[in-house]
Amino acid sequence: MLNNFFYPQSLALIGASESKGKVGHAVIKNIIDFGFPGKIYPVNPKAEKIMGISAYPSIEDIQESIDLCIMIIPPQAVLEAIEQCGKAGIHSIVIISAGFKETGTEGAKLEYDLINRAKKWNMRIIGPNCVGIVNTSARLNATFSANIPPKGDISIVSQSGAILTSIIDYAAGENTGFSKMISLGNEADITETEVLEFLGDDPDTNVIAGYIEGVKNGLEFVSVTKEVSKRKPIIILKSGNSNAGARAVSSHTGTLAGTEKAFKAAFIKSSIIRAGSIEELLGYAKSFSYQPIPEGDRLAIITNAGGPGILAADACDMSTIKMASFSNDTIKRLRESLPPLCSIYNPVDVVGDADVKRFSIALKTVAEDRGVDGLLVILTPQEMTDAKGTAQAVVDTFHEYGKTTFTSFMGKVSVKEGADFLDKNRIPNIFFPEKAVRCFEIMAQYKRGLERSSDEESSFPINKVKARDTIDNHLKRRIFTLGYEESKDIILSYDFPIPKSAVAQNTDEAVFYSGEIGYPVAMKIVSPDILHKTDVGGVVTRLKDRDEVRNAFEKMMSTVKRYMPNAFISGVSIQEMITDGKEVIIGFTRDQSFGPMLMFGMGGIYVEALKDVSFRLCPLNRFDADSMISEIKSFPLLKGIRGEKECDLRSLHDAIIKFSYLSIDFPEIIEGEINPLIVRPKGNGVIAIDSRFRLKEEI
Amino acid sequence: MLNNFFYPQSLALIGASESKGKVGHAVIKNIIDFGFPGKIYPVNPKAEKIMGISAYPSIEDIQESIDLCIMIIPPQAVLEAIEQCGKAGIHSIVIISAGFKETGTEGAKLEYDLINRAKKWNMRIIGPNCVGIVNTSARLNATFSANIPPKGDISIVSQSGAILTSIIDYAAGENTGFSKMISLGNEADITETEVLEFLGDDPDTNVIAGYIEGVKNGLEFVSVTKEVSKRKPIIILKSGNSNAGARAVSSHTGTLAGTEKAFKAAFIKSSIIRAGSIEELLGYAKSFSYQPIPEGDRLAIITNAGGPGILAADACDMSTIKMASFSNDTIKRLRESLPPLCSIYNPVDVVGDADVKRFSIALKTVAEDRGVDGLLVILTPQEMTDAKGTAQAVVDTFHEYGKTTFTSFMGKVSVKEGADFLDKNRIPNIFFPEKAVRCFEIMAQYKRGLERSSDEESSFPINKVKARDTIDNHLKRRIFTLGYEESKDIILSYDFPIPKSAVAQNTDEAVFYSGEIGYPVAMKIVSPDILHKTDVGGVVTRLKDRDEVRNAFEKMMSTVKRYMPNAFISGVSIQEMITDGKEVIIGFTRDQSFGPMLMFGMGGIYVEALKDVSFRLCPLNRFDADSMISEIKSFPLLKGIRGEKECDLRSLHDAIIKFSYLSIDFPEIIEGEINPLIVRPKGNGVIAIDSRFRLKEEI
Repeated sequence: MLNNFFYPQSLALIGASESKGKVGHAVIKNIIDFGFPGKIYPVNPKAEKIMGISAYPSIEDIQESIDLCIMIIPPQAVLEAIEQCGKAGIHSIVIISAGFKETGTEGAKLEYDLINRAKKWNMRIIGPNCVGIVNTSARLNATFSANIPPKGDISIVSQSGAILTSIIDYAAGENTGFSKMISLGNEADITETEVLEFLGDDPDTNVIAGYIEGVKNGLEFVSVTKEVSKRKPIIILKSGNSNAGARAVSSHTGTLAGTEKAFKAAFIKSSIIRAGSIEELLGYAKSFSYQPIPEGDRLAIITNAGGPGILAADACDMSTIKMASFSNDTIKRLRESLPPLCSIYNPVDVVGDADVKRFSIALKTVAEDRGVDGLLVILTPQEMTDAKGTAQAVVDTFHEYGKTTFTSFMGKVSVKEGADFLDKNRIPNIFFPEKAVRCFEIMAQYKRGLERSSDEESSFPINKVKARDTIDNHLKRRIFTLGYEESKDIILSYDFPIPKSAVAQNTDEAVFYSGEIGYPVAMKIVSPDILHKTDVGGVVTRLKDRDEVRNAFEKMMSTVKRYMPNAFISGVSIQEMITDGKEVIIGFTRDQSFGPMLMFGMGGIYVEALKDVSFRLCPLNRFDADSMISEIKSFPLLKGIRGEKECDLRSLHDAIIKFSYLSIDFPEIIEGEINPLIVRPKGNGVIAIDSRFRLKEEI
Repeated sequence: MLNNFFYPQSLALIGASESKGKVGHAVIKNIIDFGFPGKIYPVNPKAEKIMGISAYPSIEDIQESIDLCIMIIPPQAVLEAIEQCGKAGIHSIVIISAGFKETGTEGAKLEYDLINRAKKWNMRIIGPNCVGIVNTSARLNATFSANIPPKGDISIVSQSGAILTSIIDYAAGENTGFSKMISLGNEADITETEVLEFLGDDPDTNVIAGYIEGVKNGLEFVSVTKEVSKRKPIIILKSGNSNAGARAVSSHTGTLAGTEKAFKAAFIKSSIIRAGSIEELLGYAKSFSYQPIPEGDRLAIITNAGGPGILAADACDMSTIKMASFSNDTIKRLRESLPPLCSIYNPVDVVGDADVKRFSIALKTVAEDRGVDGLLVILTPQEMTDAKGTAQAVVDTFHEYGKTTFTSFMGKVSVKEGADFLDKNRIPNIFFPEKAVRCFEIMAQYKRGLERSSDEESSFPINKVKARDTIDNHLKRRIFTLGYEESKDIILSYDFPIPKSAVAQNTDEAVFYSGEIGYPVAMKIVSPDILHKTDVGGVVTRLKDRDEVRNAFEKMMSTVKRYMPNAFISGVSIQEMITDGKEVIIGFTRDQSFGPMLMFGMGGIYVEALKDVSFRLCPLNRFDADSMISEIKSFPLLKGIRGEKECDLRSLHDAIIKFSYLSIDFPEIIEGEINPLIVRPKGNGVIAIDSRFRLKEEI
């Protein structure tokens, strides 16, 4: 528990200083100026008093119990200070001092020692190399930033001190309220995940914002944030995406997956709201802080000018937000109560000469409509405009109907009084209507995320024991690359239908099996040494009769042997040809941090050339499977075009879910792929045509 | 010429008023307060003096020459006032009064009469129903907005009075400088295009911004703005995109084209910079106003904190901007002059304790590098930070090296002095680094647009006379829908190669021609009544020998007759089969406002299901053709995947350009399509497999 960090009764500052310009001075001054109500013990061997408070030469000279210790001393002195704190029974330390891991090998060594020392004393540390922490709820400002935003219910955590400082400065200007602000520094001990978990339980925090560049443990991060975001929204700005780069792995899945993809998948899994910039981070946080989460995604726009109304409608059109369509009753009432020039459909245009009364009628009528989940009120300064009065009408309507409300009072100078009134009454007033629409969209998306189907596992007739046997068998024989023949028992065990097939050793067997299976058939070389069968002439399809089978068999044998004379060939597989359906690929790789990640895409060029794929972290539920399928651009092909029948999407969901279970059940599978998986027309299921797995070599 | 509107020596105000709260009062007060240096004649029969200036009962009582007349009177009085102005020889009128077309039929009638009256007197009109005009360069504020931004070189034109008012208010708060601000109102006479042309020639205007919802004449708009944007950037916010909707036309081209697409194509053709929001409109305008256009797109980032540097690098990665890579000399000098903890590659991180000197060294070293086209300087408020001093260093470096420079001083409170200094010295200081990168990107894109290959027409062996004959021939016979057989002479005349083919009337002819052409062949039904041949069994491909041809012919005849018993069948076309290359579609439709518009996409599902197409206005040059090809998502398929040879892109350019010429040369072709056009491997050209045209019925 991090309670002592944020709600201390007493604190010590090692390195507090009387000299202006020193960090040790700035921090103690901020603590005093911000009105910290607990006891403060400055520690400085060279001073009697600091800022009028008795100073102590060392920690051991303080004979009182201390909840929190803040260190602003040279890095070399930190180890000794830790030791002293340990002896004094202090368990919560914020190390602002820099000069550790971030400076190179020597600093890293120092940080390593520091952590070991702290562990010995059962001590928790924020930092080092951080800006400090703020808790407005406890009147604690243990940072060197003097301009702290007012008290509020947003808490923010940052892996960059500079970004946190900028945000503090910006938010102070914007008057947005915050509860806790935490600079994580080097995360030698306490990580972003632990702080997010703490904020999830913190009653003073309703909205969590964060700036992160990476996470220490992906699986832990996902499991914690997934739970927290059910209780309160987490909005994160993640940077470093451009450094992702392409990993040079041979399989499709590996080639396309990467750190950025894993983060994207992790955020989806955790229902984390992703901000694209600092501005979005703060804008979204403020929206959630000020307004209730909307019941749905239907927005009504009320404006006193056409242009901005159109801009807002355009923004809805380009987003996932729906323009609310009013009930007949609403339209009737608007028609009766507004002048004829007004537009009574959405956007409602009360036109330029609208006074407060007209705005008010429109507001209440629209807010009462059950088909409206949120309101955006646009006001441009015109002749008759009463910005303050209209602001009052907006606030009244909000209090009466409780619908999520945004405003765009489009002026800086002339509407200031109204705008300030709105802000004071927690209506987010955003100059640009497009941005207000975006904030509403984010809130509606969060709501949808909360509603998404529960994570209950689907149940399938999976034979884990048989799959285990197959894998162990291969591992025992040191076979790590499994082609179709080697892996089909695994996918059969996971309830994947496969085409009828048999392995033929010679031409006669090939002809015999083809007759049993039924024409047309496909023929594929079986060899653990050949990964890309097509490239060596190892695949022939659409063989229509015995002659074609005979010829194909002989040709394949000679071609493959010419290309790969040393390959071990177990035979040739004769397969049933599936002549309907669409080819897709499902595969998984393991992200070092986030674990197994599933990829989905349409087969062939869609994956390779167009990179039209989607990723999710495993395991998946039906909601995940559905969203990852509809996310790809070529989704219409699965829905059916030109009057084609829709593909069996339900079975495709099942296939994706089962494959994700496989990745969880067998950590020794490094990567796996079913390619192609044919999704047949609705009602006819899927069928796995080819599969490949790679097993971990050291077991 | 609109000179008298913006640089009048004298002006009259019909409807000027002494009563506060009236528009007629606000306007004359603003004119006086803004310091208009010319003569002012208030016209009001009920007043002797207005705001201390002698008033006149009517225009005819003023015995002086008047350059500009502003009307703020009831709509019913406007006609009479126009008449009086005509007699007094006044040729420039701004009608602020509302109550015209925007109110319905009666108002429209009044507006129609007004324009006829004005034409009679050779008079030009801005409005009616507008906010008025501003020209800070001539100290003229003929609007009812009191907060006017300072004098500058941006001019703005708006079709929404409310949006203009909001922009004026916002810009006044931002301190961005403007020259002219024009509210167009109903555009009864003077249109957006005429004003844009005037601003293009106005020496006080260096940057043009606009808010538009539509244009009066698309072709004129494009031809004017195309020329203007070569001299100065035009940035436009266009709204109303969501109303575009899908037109229910049967051909592919028609289905996918729409007003929004035409605007997009028009903006591309005119090199107009498109803003997505009011914020972007003003941000881009300010960037162009403050800074020189960069020579290229290589940006160097200098920061005193890692996090924001990464955010900026991410933004570059997601844009068309390149992170500049420094010369060895630059890197050597940075290494020698900066402390070892600093990062000397791009982004250059001078780290948290950077003072002005360190910033200054980094700035000058980087600015001197020939591989750097622009600088983004990020400053976060930290302990040693001297925002004002760093701002001075930025300004000095800019003056010395002249490279396009942006800053992100990331604070509102603590860096204010530095930020204000930057603004005063015309360095755009944008809090969020991502936005600064976007502004630089827009400027670099404008530069690229300026450099794009000249519009000189390519020359092709086109036989216009023969195409004219073919078309006339069909028109004479009242054949308006041309299938492949009817249209192939047109595409041959425009230098499109087509497959060898012949029309067979019976089985024997089919077999004979197939032998002549060479196997494999394709077979297609020839009928002016059948648009979608495939749907009625009218297409068979890959016929390998005479038996297959014989069978196919007979089957096709019977199937087609069963499906369409009343279709007139001219025979069956036997065609050479092209077995290499990729299928694309090129087509054109006519936009009511912008004229012929070309569509390009990959054949089949790419156009129909994935809507992966691009549009350009005709005629196209090579640059246009190249950019429209590389714009589609499936472009990699043309470049070749899996080691395939690249397609013959040069020939595809030619095909697109020639087809665009055809659309210009023959206005009687309403829509045309070559589908598929096969683009063969590099060096082997293209070949038109099928084509369709629709001719205008009334000639």
